[in-house]
Amino acid sequence: MNAKTKIASSDDLKNLIRDVPDFPKKGIIFKDITPILKDPDALRYAVNELSILLEEFQPDQIVGIESRGFIFSPILAYKLRAGFIPVRKKGKLPAETIRTSYQLEYGESELEIHQDAILKGMKVAVVDDLLATGGTSKAAIHLVEKLGGQVAAVAFLVELTFLKGREKLRGYNIFSLVQY
Amino acid sequence: MNAKTKIASSDDLKNLIRDVPDFPKKGIIFKDITPILKDPDALRYAVNELSILLEEFQPDQIVGIESRGFIFSPILAYKLRAGFIPVRKKGKLPAETIRTSYQLEYGESELEIHQDAILKGMKVAVVDDLLATGGTSKAAIHLVEKLGGQVAAVAFLVELTFLKGREKLRGYNIFSLVQY
Repeated sequence: MNAKTKIASSDDLKNLIRDVPDFPKKGIIFKDITPILKDPDALRYAVNELSILLEEFQPDQIVGIESRGFIFSPILAYKLRAGFIPVRKKGKLPAETIRTSYQLEYGESELEIHQDAILKGMKVAVVDDLLATGGTSKAAIHLVEKLGGQVAAVAFLVELTFLKGREKLRGYNIFSLVQY
Repeated sequence: MNAKTKIASSDDLKNLIRDVPDFPKKGIIFKDITPILKDPDALRYAVNELSILLEEFQPDQIVGIESRGFIFSPILAYKLRAGFIPVRKKGKLPAETIRTSYQLEYGESELEIHQDAILKGMKVAVVDDLLATGGTSKAAIHLVEKLGGQVAAVAFLVELTFLKGREKLRGYNIFSLVQY
């Protein structure tokens, strides 16, 4: 009983994304992707397009960043017959981790990855829902490389081009399906 | 270059789960599923088995609970051609939500769902990685039902039977792949 939308292009995805003004705080227009997620055809289209972009790299592992980054990365791991590696906020992963800190708009935060998550030389794709300033992705890339992994590609559903995150990720293969 | 393990049963999945003592606090033995997630064959096996359990219910939507609950639920949404609905901690979802509180071991927490996430009469499956006391799942079920959704099934990768979460979820179709 889901609504039937016809999804045949990235513009159709873009049309589903909802602007939420003043979230998470005054003056920010939040790009809400949940209308894509709840639409089976749109979810399917987005996953298939991201999969096409990544498959040529034959990643061994797909890295996803807590929490919204956990949505597309496990599906792509399944679809590309890769494994899924969670990168989480400090204190959430149970076994031995390595850690990196990164800048937020105000202050700093820390991300962790399990020490045994990635073997030296493994090909890794980092997947997240949104490329904004690139700080979080850069931190995840740093963790993968510290473990000896090779970041073959970084893919996003949505890219906010005006925040120039792509510049911070220069030298990597960067992909996004929907741009603002 | 991933390790080749032969995964042909739930026992093979169970053998991959790692006990982490004293996490998140002294005296708790944490069941770490990340060795399953990073093993492409194990991830695939787990998803396929969960999918077989859920497909007869033909769910319109798969609900996942932040954060670890976001891992299997989006894959199952993709595989079963359903949508994916996130249930998140208070303040994380951008649009209009409804909210419910639930008991933690010490104190209370709150979960939210978007008000427009589920249409009246939709068939919903709730998927999480772990059934412990059942409090979180019960809260998610409550949110779905408040929106008029029909909870057709609730599925978990791991069930800690000694915590009797199944009793709290009596009356629902409950499934788990690995039991302790």
